[in-house]
Amino acid sequence: MVDMSDMHSMVKNFPSLLTSYRIESETRETCIRLGDEGIGGILILGMGGSAIAGLYVQSLFRHSAPIPILTNQDYTLPAYVDSNWIIIAVSYSGNTEETLAAYDESVNRGCQTFIIASGGELYTKGNSLSKIKIVDGYQPRAAFPLIFPIVLNLVECVMGLKPTELGTIANSLSKKALEWENSSLAPKRLAQDIIGIVPLFIGSRNLVPVAYRAKCQINENAKTMAFFSEVPEANHNEIESFISGNEFKILPIFIRSSYEDIKIKKRMNITARLYKEEGYSPVSLSIEGSNKVEEMLAFTFYLDLVSVELAKIREVNPLTVEQISKLKNELN
Amino acid sequence: MVDMSDMHSMVKNFPSLLTSYRIESETRETCIRLGDEGIGGILILGMGGSAIAGLYVQSLFRHSAPIPILTNQDYTLPAYVDSNWIIIAVSYSGNTEETLAAYDESVNRGCQTFIIASGGELYTKGNSLSKIKIVDGYQPRAAFPLIFPIVLNLVECVMGLKPTELGTIANSLSKKALEWENSSLAPKRLAQDIIGIVPLFIGSRNLVPVAYRAKCQINENAKTMAFFSEVPEANHNEIESFISGNEFKILPIFIRSSYEDIKIKKRMNITARLYKEEGYSPVSLSIEGSNKVEEMLAFTFYLDLVSVELAKIREVNPLTVEQISKLKNELN
Repeated sequence: MVDMSDMHSMVKNFPSLLTSYRIESETRETCIRLGDEGIGGILILGMGGSAIAGLYVQSLFRHSAPIPILTNQDYTLPAYVDSNWIIIAVSYSGNTEETLAAYDESVNRGCQTFIIASGGELYTKGNSLSKIKIVDGYQPRAAFPLIFPIVLNLVECVMGLKPTELGTIANSLSKKALEWENSSLAPKRLAQDIIGIVPLFIGSRNLVPVAYRAKCQINENAKTMAFFSEVPEANHNEIESFISGNEFKILPIFIRSSYEDIKIKKRMNITARLYKEEGYSPVSLSIEGSNKVEEMLAFTFYLDLVSVELAKIREVNPLTVEQISKLKNELN
Repeated sequence: MVDMSDMHSMVKNFPSLLTSYRIESETRETCIRLGDEGIGGILILGMGGSAIAGLYVQSLFRHSAPIPILTNQDYTLPAYVDSNWIIIAVSYSGNTEETLAAYDESVNRGCQTFIIASGGELYTKGNSLSKIKIVDGYQPRAAFPLIFPIVLNLVECVMGLKPTELGTIANSLSKKALEWENSSLAPKRLAQDIIGIVPLFIGSRNLVPVAYRAKCQINENAKTMAFFSEVPEANHNEIESFISGNEFKILPIFIRSSYEDIKIKKRMNITARLYKEEGYSPVSLSIEGSNKVEEMLAFTFYLDLVSVELAKIREVNPLTVEQISKLKNELN
C-alpha cells in the first residue's frame, strides 16, 4: 500500500508502478496500423515530471528509428510538425497549460493524437485516437514509472517492435534496491556526500536524460541546487570552469553506462581524472542493466531514492512544491 | 587590427566579423536548387564554440521552417537522417573528432554536405557540395560571429528566403557597445556582480541558446562556474531549489526578449519575483533588436564582453583553455 502523503513511500513503489498499466489491445492495434501506413515522426508533449518519459524514449530511439521521435516542452509546436506526425500528449494532472496549448495546436494541424493523463482538462479533449487514463494521487514526478512504459510501448508498437516486457525489469529493480541498501551504493550514503555541495550529474547518450531527471528530483524533492551536463559537449567548455582554487563547491557525479563506446568511455574517464587533479572528488556510478531500458530505469530509481534521502537529511518535505504552486496560482 | 593573443581584442571585433565573409554566388545557387528539389531536413554538426551557430539557427527556424532544422553534438547521427538531408558541418579548427566522425557517417548515408572550417582535416574532405574556408587564428568561441552568418545564410538560401543583411546589424552592435560603456549596462558592472556568485542564465525560446552561450563563455573565458536554464521548463522543477536559507549563492540573470508572448512574459516576471522573495537578487537584461537575429547577436556580444571583463577581475587568461587541451592530448 502506497502512502500518498509520503514521497519516500511513492518512490519505493517505483518497480511495481512499471507493470501497473497495460495498454489495451485496441490501442496497440491502432499504433501498429499507423506505423504500417507510414508517418512523418512522433512528437511527445510534456513538461517537468511529465516530460521525462518522452526524453527517455527520444534518446532510446535516436540510433534506431527511421523517423524523428522528438520531445516538445513549450506551448507551441515546431512548424515542421504536420498531419503526418503522431502526437503523444502527456500531462499527469491533465492541466498543464503548455501541454494543453500544444495539444490543441496539434489537433488543428490534423495530427493523430494519443493522450496520457490521470484526468484534468486534457482527458476531456476530443479528437484523440486513444485516451489513456492513469491512476491519480501521485506527484507527477513520482508517476514517471507509470508513464514511461506507456510511452515506450506506444512508440514500439508504431515502430512495429515487440513491446519491452517491463515485468522482468521491475523484478530486477526490486532486487537491486535490496542489494543497494547494505552496499556502498546505499542511497543514504550518496545523499550524505551531497550535503553542503552542489551535485553536477554528468551523463552521455541514453544517460543524459537520466542526469536531467536526477537534477530535477534533487531540485523538487530535496529543495536544493543541482545541475546536469552532457559528454562529449561539456568537454568543449564546462571543464574549463573547474580549476583548482575555484571558490564554489561542486560534486561531479558521473553516471556511467555499460553501453559506452570506446570514445565516450575514454572521455568520461579522462574528465573524471581532470576533476580529481584539480581537487574535486568525482563520484562514478555504475549500475548493471540487461539492456538500455533497464539501465536507465535502475539509475533513475536509485537517484530518486537518493533525492528523498537527501530531503530527509535536509529536513525538508519532499512532497510539497511551494514555489511551483505559487507560480501556477499567479499565472491563473 | 585584431590582436590574436588577446581575447578582449577578439571579442571587441565581434561586429566587424559579422560581415567579413560573403558566401559565393555559386554556393548560394546550389542551396536554392536543393531547396527547390525538396529535402527532408537540415542537420548542423558542431561541438563547443562551433556548435553555437547551429543552435541559434535551429531556434530561429523552429516556428517557420516546414522541415526540421536540427543540431548534432556527438560522433553519431540520428538514424532518421538519410540521403534527403542536408548536412552543414562546422568545425573551426577542422579537427574536432566528433564532427569528423559524424561528417563521414553523413557522407556514407549519401547526404548532401557543406563544410565550414578554417582548415584542418575537415577541410581536406571530399564529397562536399561546397567547402567554406574561414580565416584562421581565432579561438573557436571567438569565431562565432564569423560562423553564424554563414550558417544562417546557407539555411536561408535553402529555405528560399532572402539572406539576412548582417551589415545593418553589425553597425547597430558597434553603436550599442559605445552606449553600454557609460550606462548601467557597462559589461564591467555585470562582471562585478558575478564575483563570488554563480550566474544562472535564464532564457526562453530564441534566447535559450544565448543563455547556453553565456554559460560557456563564462566557463571558458573567466574559468568559473555558470549554468543556464529554460523557461517554461524550469518553472516545473528548478524553481523549487531556490528557497531562502539555501546555502549556495546563485545570481539568476534573466535574458529578456522583446518578442516574448504574454504567457512567457508573465512566467519570466513571476519567476524573477519568486527569486527576489526568497532573498536572491535577480538581474533582468533587456537589449533592443530590430529583429530576433539582432536581438540574439546583441545579447551575445554583450555577454561575451561580460565574460572577458570577468576574466580580468578574476585575473585569469581568457585565451587559454588548459583543461580542454589536456583532455585532447590524452584522447590522442
